[in-house]
Amino acid sequence: MTKEDYISSLKDLHHVVYYNGKRVEDVTEHPGLRPHIDSAALTYELALRPEYEDLMTATSHLTGKRINRFTHIHQSVDDLIKKVQMLRLIAHETGSCFQRCVGLDALNAVYMTSYDVDEKYKTGYFGRFKKYLIHVQESNVMVVGGMTDPKGDRSLPPSKQGDPDLFTHIVERQSDGIIIRGAKAHMTGGINSHEILIMPTQAMMENEKDYALSCAVPLNAPGIILIFGRQTNEERKFEEGFDAGNPFGPVGGEALIIFEDVFVPWEQVFLCGEYDMAGLLVERFATMHRQNYGGCKGGVSDVLIGATALAAEYQGTAGASHIKEKIAEMIHLTETLYAGSVACSAMGYKTSSGAYYPDPLLANTTKQNVTRHVYEIARLAHDVAGGIVATMPFQADLESSEVGRYVKKYLAGAKGVPVEARIKILRLIENMSGGTALVESMHGAGSPQTQKVMYVRLGNLEQKKRWAKRLVGIEKSDIERSD
Amino acid sequence: MTKEDYISSLKDLHHVVYYNGKRVEDVTEHPGLRPHIDSAALTYELALRPEYEDLMTATSHLTGKRINRFTHIHQSVDDLIKKVQMLRLIAHETGSCFQRCVGLDALNAVYMTSYDVDEKYKTGYFGRFKKYLIHVQESNVMVVGGMTDPKGDRSLPPSKQGDPDLFTHIVERQSDGIIIRGAKAHMTGGINSHEILIMPTQAMMENEKDYALSCAVPLNAPGIILIFGRQTNEERKFEEGFDAGNPFGPVGGEALIIFEDVFVPWEQVFLCGEYDMAGLLVERFATMHRQNYGGCKGGVSDVLIGATALAAEYQGTAGASHIKEKIAEMIHLTETLYAGSVACSAMGYKTSSGAYYPDPLLANTTKQNVTRHVYEIARLAHDVAGGIVATMPFQADLESSEVGRYVKKYLAGAKGVPVEARIKILRLIENMSGGTALVESMHGAGSPQTQKVMYVRLGNLEQKKRWAKRLVGIEKSDIERSD
Amino acid sequence: MTKEDYISSLKDLHHVVYYNGKRVEDVTEHPGLRPHIDSAALTYELALRPEYEDLMTATSHLTGKRINRFTHIHQSVDDLIKKVQMLRLIAHETGSCFQRCVGLDALNAVYMTSYDVDEKYKTGYFGRFKKYLIHVQESNVMVVGGMTDPKGDRSLPPSKQGDPDLFTHIVERQSDGIIIRGAKAHMTGGINSHEILIMPTQAMMENEKDYALSCAVPLNAPGIILIFGRQTNEERKFEEGFDAGNPFGPVGGEALIIFEDVFVPWEQVFLCGEYDMAGLLVERFATMHRQNYGGCKGGVSDVLIGATALAAEYQGTAGASHIKEKIAEMIHLTETLYAGSVACSAMGYKTSSGAYYPDPLLANTTKQNVTRHVYEIARLAHDVAGGIVATMPFQADLESSEVGRYVKKYLAGAKGVPVEARIKILRLIENMSGGTALVESMHGAGSPQTQKVMYVRLGNLEQKKRWAKRLVGIEKSDIERSD
Amino acid sequence: MTKEDYISSLKDLHHVVYYNGKRVEDVTEHPGLRPHIDSAALTYELALRPEYEDLMTATSHLTGKRINRFTHIHQSVDDLIKKVQMLRLIAHETGSCFQRCVGLDALNAVYMTSYDVDEKYKTGYFGRFKKYLIHVQESNVMVVGGMTDPKGDRSLPPSKQGDPDLFTHIVERQSDGIIIRGAKAHMTGGINSHEILIMPTQAMMENEKDYALSCAVPLNAPGIILIFGRQTNEERKFEEGFDAGNPFGPVGGEALIIFEDVFVPWEQVFLCGEYDMAGLLVERFATMHRQNYGGCKGGVSDVLIGATALAAEYQGTAGASHIKEKIAEMIHLTETLYAGSVACSAMGYKTSSGAYYPDPLLANTTKQNVTRHVYEIARLAHDVAGGIVATMPFQADLESSEVGRYVKKYLAGAKGVPVEARIKILRLIENMSGGTALVESMHGAGSPQTQKVMYVRLGNLEQKKRWAKRLVGIEKSDIERSD
Repeated sequence: MTKEDYISSLKDLHHVVYYNGKRVEDVTEHPGLRPHIDSAALTYELALRPEYEDLMTATSHLTGKRINRFTHIHQSVDDLIKKVQMLRLIAHETGSCFQRCVGLDALNAVYMTSYDVDEKYKTGYFGRFKKYLIHVQESNVMVVGGMTDPKGDRSLPPSKQGDPDLFTHIVERQSDGIIIRGAKAHMTGGINSHEILIMPTQAMMENEKDYALSCAVPLNAPGIILIFGRQTNEERKFEEGFDAGNPFGPVGGEALIIFEDVFVPWEQVFLCGEYDMAGLLVERFATMHRQNYGGCKGGVSDVLIGATALAAEYQGTAGASHIKEKIAEMIHLTETLYAGSVACSAMGYKTSSGAYYPDPLLANTTKQNVTRHVYEIARLAHDVAGGIVATMPFQADLESSEVGRYVKKYLAGAKGVPVEARIKILRLIENMSGGTALVESMHGAGSPQTQKVMYVRLGNLEQKKRWAKRLVGIEKSDIERSD
Repeated sequence: MTKEDYISSLKDLHHVVYYNGKRVEDVTEHPGLRPHIDSAALTYELALRPEYEDLMTATSHLTGKRINRFTHIHQSVDDLIKKVQMLRLIAHETGSCFQRCVGLDALNAVYMTSYDVDEKYKTGYFGRFKKYLIHVQESNVMVVGGMTDPKGDRSLPPSKQGDPDLFTHIVERQSDGIIIRGAKAHMTGGINSHEILIMPTQAMMENEKDYALSCAVPLNAPGIILIFGRQTNEERKFEEGFDAGNPFGPVGGEALIIFEDVFVPWEQVFLCGEYDMAGLLVERFATMHRQNYGGCKGGVSDVLIGATALAAEYQGTAGASHIKEKIAEMIHLTETLYAGSVACSAMGYKTSSGAYYPDPLLANTTKQNVTRHVYEIARLAHDVAGGIVATMPFQADLESSEVGRYVKKYLAGAKGVPVEARIKILRLIENMSGGTALVESMHGAGSPQTQKVMYVRLGNLEQKKRWAKRLVGIEKSDIERSD
Repeated sequence: MTKEDYISSLKDLHHVVYYNGKRVEDVTEHPGLRPHIDSAALTYELALRPEYEDLMTATSHLTGKRINRFTHIHQSVDDLIKKVQMLRLIAHETGSCFQRCVGLDALNAVYMTSYDVDEKYKTGYFGRFKKYLIHVQESNVMVVGGMTDPKGDRSLPPSKQGDPDLFTHIVERQSDGIIIRGAKAHMTGGINSHEILIMPTQAMMENEKDYALSCAVPLNAPGIILIFGRQTNEERKFEEGFDAGNPFGPVGGEALIIFEDVFVPWEQVFLCGEYDMAGLLVERFATMHRQNYGGCKGGVSDVLIGATALAAEYQGTAGASHIKEKIAEMIHLTETLYAGSVACSAMGYKTSSGAYYPDPLLANTTKQNVTRHVYEIARLAHDVAGGIVATMPFQADLESSEVGRYVKKYLAGAKGVPVEARIKILRLIENMSGGTALVESMHGAGSPQTQKVMYVRLGNLEQKKRWAKRLVGIEKSDIERSD
Repeated sequence: MTKEDYISSLKDLHHVVYYNGKRVEDVTEHPGLRPHIDSAALTYELALRPEYEDLMTATSHLTGKRINRFTHIHQSVDDLIKKVQMLRLIAHETGSCFQRCVGLDALNAVYMTSYDVDEKYKTGYFGRFKKYLIHVQESNVMVVGGMTDPKGDRSLPPSKQGDPDLFTHIVERQSDGIIIRGAKAHMTGGINSHEILIMPTQAMMENEKDYALSCAVPLNAPGIILIFGRQTNEERKFEEGFDAGNPFGPVGGEALIIFEDVFVPWEQVFLCGEYDMAGLLVERFATMHRQNYGGCKGGVSDVLIGATALAAEYQGTAGASHIKEKIAEMIHLTETLYAGSVACSAMGYKTSSGAYYPDPLLANTTKQNVTRHVYEIARLAHDVAGGIVATMPFQADLESSEVGRYVKKYLAGAKGVPVEARIKILRLIENMSGGTALVESMHGAGSPQTQKVMYVRLGNLEQKKRWAKRLVGIEKSDIERSD
């Protein structure tokens, strides 16, 4: 599938998308949406370039065919590492989110877990899912992974919410399929995916069986409505020119996806009531998604570091020792993020299904660092770039016959640097270091506290206590109450 | 002067302002500018409220009349502290910059320094300046302090720039006044001030006498052009509604002010060629401006903390221990900022001119903390508020007859909280924690490195070395090469 | 009282002190204790120097006599600020804790609170306490403030502990006085104080009346036993020479003070069962003690910065830009600490008793910063000083006839710097940046979480929420469940 | 070689060691040195345990024999990862440095680089070195890697120092070998190694050929003198009991090793004047040594986390939410360290010599994080453990017939926990979080600035700039002056 095929397939999708209160007829022609489509399109385009074949494609373990890596089930540690390298590679092209990892992680998580559900309950989910997977691999469709429910009052479980639909659930079981209702929030790449692979949003209790749900649906299915989320400076996308900063947008483009009694045939249902398996599916998706963040954000940071270094160069400060120190610090933080993604991949292991899984403790560590370092990297970019990043005139001022000459005269930097080049770089920094871009680093793949919770579970505190006691000679018998 | 008087005086100003490539006929009717005018207007309005009289007004030491504190020369430590308290007070009303401290600090800095220039050079600047000051106090005009020059290639001094106008300078000395050319960048409150008080941008050398310039000019003087800087999400100001977040804008509104051969009569010239005094004037303005940041940003942070606590409450997470911990941390950082402003005021002292001056080392400490903690406070706000702060639908979606019911249904939070209230608070957080607002904290009153430089100068390192040597008994005679 | 008088008074005290398992006959002759005595002695010595009279002494509001400021009840904001300045001054002499502020804070806290207890319960504590205070002011004795109880299992209140003595309590009420039992832990300056002023360790419940206790006792009273705490590198104090680093020790010297059925006459009892006032007393002592930490630790840091700058100079790295940056950062952190102490003092206010009290929110902010920045300052000192700070040979090696010449040859630094001077400075850094010194910054005047708890109580979160709601136009009536 | 063989071989070494100004006759019987010997001995002991065979041993690529991994040349990425896992494993046993990685890294660095020197200069170093390596592998001797020279005035190169010996150098070239003079500082494991493998301390210039030196010498060679460095609380090692905290000492034990005209036969010389290759050798050793720090310090941190969790449990605070949060944070920081070591290993590659080399950018990232996080981990340990960690009585007090009962009574914690167990754990925390242990994390394998310097060299800033320019459409031709 070429980039063009991908875009034309979206044109044909006729899914129900709303933007700023209005129905969007053709997402591909909508300036508010197109940057995100162009970004995702690179996952198709780069896969066709010979020099990237090794990273961007893989061999299907089911069909033996060469497939886009975004549809691949990881068969080795090497696959896990290549995933991370691929993400950093594409981010160097986009300087923004390209969205498609969500579906990849959903495919892998459901693959592993449907296998385990079958093992436990003798269900037939795994076989169904393999068929679905072959369809995805062959058609190379873009799948959005749908996990986060709106959740209403977060202090209450699904069963105690005023509105039962605040968690997506099964409304009815029919002979040929199920009817579902609810919504998935913050759906990255939602408006430009072909299908959604739904997963539960958290571990579920016995009285929450209807919320233990995994299934796949095309996004143009009847009853599905997508509402696009408003981003920082989204109006600039409607302008011709460079004030928007990054032509691929500040983040991936998030949508609220509503399921108003949507029918799903049984062949596309992969978890339906096995509530005790919901937690495992959530944890696996989260781990695989957290694995990514040092790859993609590492690559995005590389671009921001480059832009920051250029901003310094363009205004004559690149030689100052404190500027060099700050750029070195940005590199340090970026490589710390990347190290996390590589490490959890290198320590990955095979699950019962045969698919490989990254080390969950290290994957959580990776994401937690992202929630901190991306902000600090942005802070350093602002420091180096200067106040001008927040006070520059509009592009229309630069181009004005009345005041354009003043903007050119007074925004001049180092000799030989066109003012326009300087402004473009500063607008890129503005785009990459502001609101939406930061928040995505904080909450994408799970808010910081979700990683902290995993540390307690995965950190093996009892073993650590034993090492300490052995070292100073505290015997088990010394302590009645101890472990 | 009431709020209304202030606004109508701006209507009458007829200064030359550009916004987005177009000349603005009336700044007070322009949706892109009005929020900033409304914010500054509060410095007039609150001064008329009896309960704030003590903080918002003062008695002129020149005329004995009751004046707006924003035109007052500090006569005591108590005045310095009240300034800081006033700033925090107003910030509680605006949650944003109200701009007028820049002029206040410029008035005080020029007051002190013109006195010292006269002492050294037997010039008559101080007398002139006092007359100008009485005019400002009596008319209660808003004065913007003009320090930062565009500076072109920052590795070069004014005399080495390709274009001599990249630093504002005297082009001609005439019998009745001087002609100046150049520009001042990042001028907070520029478009809604009446006058500008120009100061040099840095210490100057002997061959840079024409750049050693301080003078006052009305902003409607011939040859002055203002170009408004583009802000984060500035298009939202043109909408009716609440997506803009804060009705007073994210920051004070910055403009590039251009001086195209502007005439200034001698009575309004306060430094003209005494190059060796430029550095002192810069340092004093910087110190007094850095004094402020724990006051105003402290107050702004209070509002952001309140919004963050409400966001948590509205979505049912206010009781979680990690949420409470994060809000406590936001309070800690905020009070650390405020402590700096109070401390440098409490340690202030009288200058030769009689005006009081805050402790410069502590004032620099205050600003440096602002360049760090405001980012961390924003990060914590994002953490607590959740990803929704970056993915919410448009207000038009909420109000749409087609999808409005879905937005209401799926953005519902805790029982009894209207969805609109929740969205308003989240939009406020978005506004206060994004791009422009952060950058202003970084670079307003001087970029971080300018404070670091002052630490070396003011930190009294030689005395610190002596204390260490005394403690361990190192005699002066032990070390040939030492101090 | 001269330094010599103070020392000889300790000789005469004959209190029961244990060090390393052995009874100490004369604390003033014990090498393990003497550094701390010498440090406290400076509070006597400096008070007699004319140049420090203003800071080190005050006029008693009770007797009108000139007294040591360490026995003064603060009568103004100026007194609060002078206290902080005095602490920084003495720390420049000692580079370590001089212990006597604990008693000063206890005197002020009991003064204020005994007044309030009398107001509420018509007791006569305040009159008694004033008599006691006059005794302290006239005799200029050193008083240790005794707050922290051992507390056993910290998840349990006093009444649920296995051993009721883990919180200090009244065992018996007699006609002439009371009998108390228990212990006070971490008593800074314990072994070289004359008396102890006991306070409760936390707020108490109705069934904990016997724990609501404040009283004063001489430390040589029958039944009192002091056990000195082991410090980092304490054996080096027993050596002649400079490996110990700081001749005044790394911290103040802490002792465990045991009360084995100690009799206290009624005249020295200032709280006895009014359980509901215990919390207020604790909070006041804590606030006044937290006020100090930017003063004393600020001064200690000044010395460490000086030592670090010398270490760099002595090894030829002082000119490197990253070294200068790190020293500037140490100054920044130090002044941030100091700003807190000054600010809470400047915002202090008068209590009903007439005594002045620092702003509690800012005092807590001060201490919280100390728990962080002192560690970072130490880290930077290590960074600049180099690995040599941890791998230097013994002084005996330097002086050895066999290998001394190698130590001199290979530890040589910049030209003209004697190796001994270099080692002395590095040993000083080692002393000031290691174990005990850091822990004291963490837990002295209350562990970090105790300040966090106060933020919630003092941070006025409801007011902050109101500001946010007003700004975006959320009416009270909008939200049923809100405040 | 068993642990016992190792120890007895040291007894037989008869090398010249000084401790505290006195010659040590038998290092294995010296209480000040024995802890470090016991720690290194575990590298022998664990290698004989079947369950650790895979990690602790390897197959020699030269002889095909099973060898201790500390003598192995890495033949694959897997070898690089196993090295890191081995380090974390041993650290769980020791909670301290076990020293032997220095020699391992020196062997690998000299192996790779002697190959490259031969390639360039047709010298025969590589062949010689392989013979030496076989000797090391077969005899399983402990080799200390000798890099850091004393360096005198750090602002001067070797040739400008007052004393030419401040950098180790060749004094004379003879027919059978060379004579060297100088010293190596901070030599971890120096006093309990059998041999030293000397490398240059930095890149060298043409006029510094005599400083471009690599060779191996037994530590009992005539002219070699070792002086042991003084550590935090080193006197406690001479006590029987547990106040010393960790029986393996706080760090590895560092020595200053002096070369007073030491003869080295040509067979053991691996670089001799090829000054332009010195920098490469230094960089490779540094990279491989920095690779380790997330492994060993990760393991050490695990023990400290365990001890901290026990301290909380023993005093009844383990259930508090802020305590759990802090322990989770310690885990986060520890896994971040480990992630670095794993990542640079996973991204390792084959050098021309055939030996594998970790990714240098990620290895530097790892070490830089260690210089920060180990301090923060220590700070958190202090926070959780409480002030008691710095004020506990001596062990002799606990055992005293006079006051022991008070110590037991008042240091009691949660029910069922013997006071002695509590004290042991707190002493372990004290040992692991104080002076020497921290400094080692800062400067071992290179001070922080050495990593910052590498970021600039390895961070590929020009490529990052190109990505940024491409994204916003800045053409090469736009910028005359750009790259």
